[in-house]
Amino acid sequence: MPNQRLQGIFTPNLVPYTSDGSINEEELRRYIDWLIERGVHGLYPNGSTGEFTRFTPEERRRIAAIIADQTRGRVPILAGAAEANVKETLAACEYYASLGVRAVAIVAPFYYKLSPASVYAYFKEIGDNTPVDVTLYNIPMFASPIDVPTVQRLSEECERIVAIKDSSGEIPHMIRMIQAVRPNRPDFAFLTGWDAALMPMLLVGCDGGTNASSGVVPELTRKLYDTTLHGDLEAARRLQYDLVRLFDAMIYSAEFPEGFRAAVGLRGFNMGHGRQPMSSEQRTDLETLSNELQCHLAAHGFTDQPIGGCPVDPNAVIADTAEVSAIVQSVLAELKRRGL
Amino acid sequence: MPNQRLQGIFTPNLVPYTSDGSINEEELRRYIDWLIERGVHGLYPNGSTGEFTRFTPEERRRIAAIIADQTRGRVPILAGAAEANVKETLAACEYYASLGVRAVAIVAPFYYKLSPASVYAYFKEIGDNTPVDVTLYNIPMFASPIDVPTVQRLSEECERIVAIKDSSGEIPHMIRMIQAVRPNRPDFAFLTGWDAALMPMLLVGCDGGTNASSGVVPELTRKLYDTTLHGDLEAARRLQYDLVRLFDAMIYSAEFPEGFRAAVGLRGFNMGHGRQPMSSEQRTDLETLSNELQCHLAAHGFTDQPIGGCPVDPNAVIADTAEVSAIVQSVLAELKRRGL
Amino acid sequence: MPNQRLQGIFTPNLVPYTSDGSINEEELRRYIDWLIERGVHGLYPNGSTGEFTRFTPEERRRIAAIIADQTRGRVPILAGAAEANVKETLAACEYYASLGVRAVAIVAPFYYKLSPASVYAYFKEIGDNTPVDVTLYNIPMFASPIDVPTVQRLSEECERIVAIKDSSGEIPHMIRMIQAVRPNRPDFAFLTGWDAALMPMLLVGCDGGTNASSGVVPELTRKLYDTTLHGDLEAARRLQYDLVRLFDAMIYSAEFPEGFRAAVGLRGFNMGHGRQPMSSEQRTDLETLSNELQCHLAAHGFTDQPIGGCPVDPNAVIADTAEVSAIVQSVLAELKRRGL
Amino acid sequence: MPNQRLQGIFTPNLVPYTSDGSINEEELRRYIDWLIERGVHGLYPNGSTGEFTRFTPEERRRIAAIIADQTRGRVPILAGAAEANVKETLAACEYYASLGVRAVAIVAPFYYKLSPASVYAYFKEIGDNTPVDVTLYNIPMFASPIDVPTVQRLSEECERIVAIKDSSGEIPHMIRMIQAVRPNRPDFAFLTGWDAALMPMLLVGCDGGTNASSGVVPELTRKLYDTTLHGDLEAARRLQYDLVRLFDAMIYSAEFPEGFRAAVGLRGFNMGHGRQPMSSEQRTDLETLSNELQCHLAAHGFTDQPIGGCPVDPNAVIADTAEVSAIVQSVLAELKRRGL
Repeated sequence: MPNQRLQGIFTPNLVPYTSDGSINEEELRRYIDWLIERGVHGLYPNGSTGEFTRFTPEERRRIAAIIADQTRGRVPILAGAAEANVKETLAACEYYASLGVRAVAIVAPFYYKLSPASVYAYFKEIGDNTPVDVTLYNIPMFASPIDVPTVQRLSEECERIVAIKDSSGEIPHMIRMIQAVRPNRPDFAFLTGWDAALMPMLLVGCDGGTNASSGVVPELTRKLYDTTLHGDLEAARRLQYDLVRLFDAMIYSAEFPEGFRAAVGLRGFNMGHGRQPMSSEQRTDLETLSNELQCHLAAHGFTDQPIGGCPVDPNAVIADTAEVSAIVQSVLAELKRRGL
Repeated sequence: MPNQRLQGIFTPNLVPYTSDGSINEEELRRYIDWLIERGVHGLYPNGSTGEFTRFTPEERRRIAAIIADQTRGRVPILAGAAEANVKETLAACEYYASLGVRAVAIVAPFYYKLSPASVYAYFKEIGDNTPVDVTLYNIPMFASPIDVPTVQRLSEECERIVAIKDSSGEIPHMIRMIQAVRPNRPDFAFLTGWDAALMPMLLVGCDGGTNASSGVVPELTRKLYDTTLHGDLEAARRLQYDLVRLFDAMIYSAEFPEGFRAAVGLRGFNMGHGRQPMSSEQRTDLETLSNELQCHLAAHGFTDQPIGGCPVDPNAVIADTAEVSAIVQSVLAELKRRGL
Repeated sequence: MPNQRLQGIFTPNLVPYTSDGSINEEELRRYIDWLIERGVHGLYPNGSTGEFTRFTPEERRRIAAIIADQTRGRVPILAGAAEANVKETLAACEYYASLGVRAVAIVAPFYYKLSPASVYAYFKEIGDNTPVDVTLYNIPMFASPIDVPTVQRLSEECERIVAIKDSSGEIPHMIRMIQAVRPNRPDFAFLTGWDAALMPMLLVGCDGGTNASSGVVPELTRKLYDTTLHGDLEAARRLQYDLVRLFDAMIYSAEFPEGFRAAVGLRGFNMGHGRQPMSSEQRTDLETLSNELQCHLAAHGFTDQPIGGCPVDPNAVIADTAEVSAIVQSVLAELKRRGL
Repeated sequence: MPNQRLQGIFTPNLVPYTSDGSINEEELRRYIDWLIERGVHGLYPNGSTGEFTRFTPEERRRIAAIIADQTRGRVPILAGAAEANVKETLAACEYYASLGVRAVAIVAPFYYKLSPASVYAYFKEIGDNTPVDVTLYNIPMFASPIDVPTVQRLSEECERIVAIKDSSGEIPHMIRMIQAVRPNRPDFAFLTGWDAALMPMLLVGCDGGTNASSGVVPELTRKLYDTTLHGDLEAARRLQYDLVRLFDAMIYSAEFPEGFRAAVGLRGFNMGHGRQPMSSEQRTDLETLSNELQCHLAAHGFTDQPIGGCPVDPNAVIADTAEVSAIVQSVLAELKRRGL
């Protein structure tokens, strides 16, 4: 198993909260079973979708432990292991290794924007000392970017670095990485974190993805993966188009990952309130979104329509273009005046 | 005169249009006289405020010729001379020299984003062949940036390059340029194009500015310049604060330079409609802005209040914060969904 | 023909220069024949590759006229028609229509960064008055972006707007546009301007591209297009990977479009020197690049190896990673200090 | 005291490390005394300069406790208190209050990029529940931005929010904040975190700064502060120019805050190695920088010249412009090719 390339869709787990804001273990266990039954290839706790930065170091370990215990080897686990510094991160790797995870995923250092040389030095020290396989995690919108030469160099120097998860969503970047790494490391895996480009990413050579949508509609993402790999491009394209619509609604309509949390709630789970406070206006927006998401999910048969029904054409949920354009224009001016 | 450093506020001229969209020469001449009478130190046709990109090469020459003819040497002229390529730009320099302008201003190449080496090569060829003094024009939000070493190198190699107009608005950048250039070229001038930082720019060593606001309220910008230079910091600070308020209203509430055009209209000039088409929503927004601007100008005694009056506190024109915040939030989500 | 969707690869024509910097008509005609013989589906003068901003309005017309005359209807022509303002642009459209072009392509307004409402108003006025079919041209790295709702609205209101060329290279953006427009306008075409994503773009529903690489290796881009459409994904992927390597070398190693100009020179054309001046260091860099490009082209049998030969592995032209990383790091620091 | 506005220069403390990478308490205590003796107005542990993200929650508390103990009320302390979520952050506020700090400073949420509404909601919950005065901390290059209306609203609703530290370095932004807040909250303080604009910031109305340079040359920043407040503009300007040179060398020549750590080492402290690993190339670069910094410090009499001496003109440490430009150009191309 250690030498087999990571592949398939790993679901980045959201964490359900109890009413007092702590981890809802029971609901988390129920959610894990539900995901596995619907065909996800693996699980991925403590990623960005899993809000790893909003937990204490102890909570992050507990989340992975619950998931490992509930999974009992049915699917592989990729555990997010980034901590405050290299020493703390390696200690977390030790712990996750003891849980039997397939690999850890480590995001590049964030807050400070590091140079390629520093990103290399950081992962090199981890790669040389880790007791478990490591997946690099590149998410340039949130963390220091991991550039192509850095991936190449690390893949050549560190056997235990076995994959990269890339959330940039850029096809040419993915091609450049595969070109640079695969000739020397055929066991190295490439996973995309950008759901809106999943099908074309698979077609240019990706091995799979870690896609937040798979926590909401695991049936759809699994089918998209299977049809693409079987070369049924027409069906795959239709599924990808549907996924873009759903993904956009979840990712752009509320503060990430609240749109995904709302959608998982619609699939029957009690997710609780997130740890990032919301204004009353934001709570109202989230309810509107929830209704819209229910229509999307109902259109695919994943749930019932909301009370009051849905528009005939799913496109119609997007308001009249001209009207929106006028609002946007006036608000853009307002935004700029306010120094944004 | 050739060896005297450029200094003071050069007004970037807006061009009034006739009802059929051509240059309104009569109104332009009347506007020039009005500006000179109100104390602007110089005039600056064919800048960004003057919409140089929206005119044909022939029109650009005609605008400068009208202004030179009307000015008759009362104040120096800085003529925007950028054309499609070096050869055309040098031909324009010849023409502007024949009009007796004090200097030309040449923006760095735009559309393509050029490297420092290319920006250097471009200005070097111009600086070596120009028949008239040249002001570099750095406006990184619209054109290729001119970095500090490029300014330094050009100032050392090309005697006819005598100034830089910088619209970045960044104080540390201005300090770095002055540090790099002034020791070897005491005759080299530094002008700021960012009205919202005019007073502190003068205090760290700038020689003046090319400020669109001076085309609207030449009395205010002149007074700000004079009080700052005379060390009356308390008065200068108050004027700078007022200028920020007015500048923000003009620059962020409509497509640049329409806010400035509307405001010059309020000072009594028939500016006509700009060449960039507007949607009906945008026309309505511009009318609202015009009312708001009239209140700003009335507060300083530059015009009467609009019919219906003005809010007591000029701050009150900005709507209730919480309400705006809710709108902004919902529209931001909409913007993102639309791929912005 | 007017109702047939645009499709295939349209080559954005570079313009060869004589030794005195004017248009080399003879070489341009020879180049056009060469391209058509190698299977390009169409020609595209006055695009970004064709350096439209560096020509006078009269020269832009002459370039299109020469190409139309030489082509004599063998392939359709898409003529870049953007001028200083709407009135001048419509006059250019009239002229290009008289040449018999299939359509014009019009870039969104540049220099000033316009809002979606203004971009809409601009194209609406053109779309309502054009005598020839119009292709929108979205290139957000150089010009104001054309967002999805704007494309949708224009496609619904203006029958003569028949296509969009998008150079963002973002797959999800392309999917969103197709989703928004195709249901109501099955005749509307989607072309990608980003060569590094050509194959996946075609697979998600694009109709073709306007790809600078096709002016250098028309055989390769044609084959990539054909194999992708015939579903030979393995071959298409290999060609796409090769294209990324070649494209990257041409686009990132010199000021655009000089890398492409050098490569066309290697195919046997006398392209002359570009109009943007180069420093002596840049000329040296371009010679190094030229050698590297020759190796790329030789690897595909398009030309001979340079004197001195090529590295065995084309990857090997990229210097040792660690060494480059050290240089990059030290220069990044230098860049930052200089205010970049 | 609670109603007195924060003012003066608060030094963001670097943390010295022992050889095994833990906090060097003895050296930290010695450094605190040294700073206070040289006239810093306050101390600021757990800021960005203090690498707060690289410590565990327990270590952050220990750092503040050591500093509070060593300071014994000689100067006020502003303690960085951001933790993983609101609940943890409030617990940290309780602890820092028990240490007797003057206020805490809380950076806007980072990693995820939050909307203004979410940033508001986050600080509102903290502001309503904190037992100690709170300083907002705006550092848009690292964390979600805090916009002007959010500052205004929070200042009006939360009495315990008493200041903002702004590290954007933008003068117009500072003016807009002061305009929006000061009329209703004369006790609210504005501190700038951008050393390169310290003098003009003070001149437009800032109350002070939290400036990393003050940990290296507290004598210089104190003198800059005093001369500016006393209206000795000529002297202040010279000091500001010197500070820009020194600040640029420390901030742009190595991964932040290593340049500052090296410089504090030159003032006689054993700072140890940072927790972010460095490549061997980076270690060499840091030694070169150290030499250059020593020359800067020696030029002001803060230390001896390095063995081997310094260039006559401090400007001369910057290499010949043309040569650097050539390197930069070639490396920029390399950077782009590598996907940066």
